Amino acid sequence: MALIVQKYGGTSVGNPERIKNVARRVASYRKKGDQVVVVVSAMSGVTDGLIRMAKEIMPLPNEREMDMLLATGEQTTIALAAMALHAENLPAVSLTGAQAGIVTDRVHTKAKILNITPRQVHAQLKAGNVVIVAGFQGETREGQITTLGRGGSDLTAIALAAALKADLCQIYTDVDGVYSADPRIVASARKMKEISYDEMLELASLGAKVMQSRSVEFAKKFGVVFEVRSSLNDNPGTIVKEETKNMEDVVIRGVALDKNQSKITLVAVPDKPGVAARVFKALADASINVDMIVQNVSHGSGRPATDLSFTLEKADALKTQKVIEQLRKEIGFAKAITSEKIGKLSIVGVGMRSHSGVAAKMFETLAKEKINIDMISTSEIKISVVIDLAKGEQAMRAVHAAFIR
Amino acid sequence: MALIVQKYGGTSVGNPERIKNVARRVASYRKKGDQVVVVVSAMSGVTDGLIRMAKEIMPLPNEREMDMLLATGEQTTIALAAMALHAENLPAVSLTGAQAGIVTDRVHTKAKILNITPRQVHAQLKAGNVVIVAGFQGETREGQITTLGRGGSDLTAIALAAALKADLCQIYTDVDGVYSADPRIVASARKMKEISYDEMLELASLGAKVMQSRSVEFAKKFGVVFEVRSSLNDNPGTIVKEETKNMEDVVIRGVALDKNQSKITLVAVPDKPGVAARVFKALADASINVDMIVQNVSHGSGRPATDLSFTLEKADALKTQKVIEQLRKEIGFAKAITSEKIGKLSIVGVGMRSHSGVAAKMFETLAKEKINIDMISTSEIKISVVIDLAKGEQAMRAVHAAFIR
Repeated sequence: MALIVQKYGGTSVGNPERIKNVARRVASYRKKGDQVVVVVSAMSGVTDGLIRMAKEIMPLPNEREMDMLLATGEQTTIALAAMALHAENLPAVSLTGAQAGIVTDRVHTKAKILNITPRQVHAQLKAGNVVIVAGFQGETREGQITTLGRGGSDLTAIALAAALKADLCQIYTDVDGVYSADPRIVASARKMKEISYDEMLELASLGAKVMQSRSVEFAKKFGVVFEVRSSLNDNPGTIVKEETKNMEDVVIRGVALDKNQSKITLVAVPDKPGVAARVFKALADASINVDMIVQNVSHGSGRPATDLSFTLEKADALKTQKVIEQLRKEIGFAKAITSEKIGKLSIVGVGMRSHSGVAAKMFETLAKEKINIDMISTSEIKISVVIDLAKGEQAMRAVHAAFIR
Repeated sequence: MALIVQKYGGTSVGNPERIKNVARRVASYRKKGDQVVVVVSAMSGVTDGLIRMAKEIMPLPNEREMDMLLATGEQTTIALAAMALHAENLPAVSLTGAQAGIVTDRVHTKAKILNITPRQVHAQLKAGNVVIVAGFQGETREGQITTLGRGGSDLTAIALAAALKADLCQIYTDVDGVYSADPRIVASARKMKEISYDEMLELASLGAKVMQSRSVEFAKKFGVVFEVRSSLNDNPGTIVKEETKNMEDVVIRGVALDKNQSKITLVAVPDKPGVAARVFKALADASINVDMIVQNVSHGSGRPATDLSFTLEKADALKTQKVIEQLRKEIGFAKAITSEKIGKLSIVGVGMRSHSGVAAKMFETLAKEKINIDMISTSEIKISVVIDLAKGEQAMRAVHAAFIR
């Protein structure tokens, strides 16, 4: 008898009919004799509807009250899911995040889980119930309702799996698993049987948005092995776990293309200590997340000056313009050039640690396709390049073909 | 500085715009320096929508899960109401029933309040906040979410007013107060300045559906004086309180007409001990609430037999047919006659205790209008008659004119 934690997202529980489908799947595990804990999100659209009402009342609603409001979304789903299991003749009981013992800090709308005391979960499992837990929410030590922010339901599932020492944690979503590339772009993309936490983290942050990084980080920290799989079929998904020796046999695990970035180049920045620090401090103070940074060598003639390029989310472009305008007055660079027509292509794999020539092979592949490389950034298990957006998908297919067979 | 408990029903908080109106009203009290506790219902339509989803999943949903589901309705409103007060620049904080310390028994979907420990309410008031409490809900000693059943939000307000020793409890609704008769039927109906708990209870149970009886009973038990008034204007409403000496000067407080009853007559019931008991036991076992009961004198000839008439809610008529069919086999009465075309006209007033001839005057008034009386039932402060439904409104106007000037 295994203890399984399953998480179903908003699309999987989007209406009563789909909730019944989830119940049938849960029932098939329960009837095999497994104990099942189910974590659910709000029905798709519900959270947005609540936010819309809140904004009708006040443009910037108080965050404690926002949590009070949004927590109703998951609470609705758990009750309906428990009923759907009853309809399958299975005993089931729903628990809010607070009832499931999920204790968080006091940072409303993006609380961190401090600890889990799943006394009620254990008691209900022992009584033979399927336990349905509201994802995305918890409670402070003082009894205030909190929510965990984006990807919060995944986090609830993984944290619960850790606290319960579950045998299996399944994240059900609308894709079959983690692919070596987006199958809509690369027809030959393959579903991976397994992937390491670090590779999953790099892919998550590179635009292959299967899961939020924080859930994967949490799983890594507590050694929670989990499976990403589809709620629409019975195909096995992708297991995410600690790196194993044989994972290194695969040089490149996946290729990701992020079309959602802007590149900004500050031209002729005075080349003296502390200038770069001032630039990125100003951006950080404005809550702008900078991704890649490249500084070119100094120009030879005249006053020493350099070009400074960086990328960031397109959504932050407007905010950035203002910061840069201010910086230009203070620092005195020549001009700023913004380009939105860029794509960031990345390859990820723990195998590249023990294989040389990976970068060279990637650049060669792009050269053969006559694709110019604008910026380069590397980490231990990742190489990213910025290229022309129009050639992004062509580049992705070529690199995938070169590395993944 | 007074402590005021205000309750707003589902229509008063039916959309974000109306919630803002409620906030403006609350603000006007708060700015006078009063402390305000606001109890709100679910936005109109929300509870019905939740019930509909539940029934799509299962025709008879589990009651614990029903409570988990329905409690989200009020939780949504409290968060939005708190935001609306923030928009009025007033500090406000929302509390679920559980957070407000409302402890109930374990009877899901119709829980009784066992006690209230409003520690958080006191603390938030002391901190200068308007406190918004979710009506209709509470929590068992074991931490399970419960709901209080029909009229539950009124009950929350009155119970909180008792626990907080509030100076004033206002029940905001869509009528101006309690009238001497339904103003849509009797143009000369007058809004009462005050009314005793007992009169209010009789009127509530007689089809003048301003409030559910249980809330009034609770207010009577704990001596909570409350005001029924409109959320659409600033008119003073009707104060409901313990009977005072001068209330007896008014013989009849109000006239009510209940069009929603059926009359059933069992003809030639064997007139022997225990027969009536068997009839009403069978109806009670089927959860059918019988209202008036009249047994005629025995017929002179043959086997001693009697006619037994009673009234009940039209909604229960079908269920009743089946019970009676069964009873006829067991007891052997001649036949059952059902009449849906009846109206129950009642007059209520604590003054009738000390005034004689009230019944006679009522019957005389109806006789002058050539209206036949079918059944009569009296209590200490009420006289009810069953008459032809078609003449109900005419009778109501005549009786109102005779007693209320």
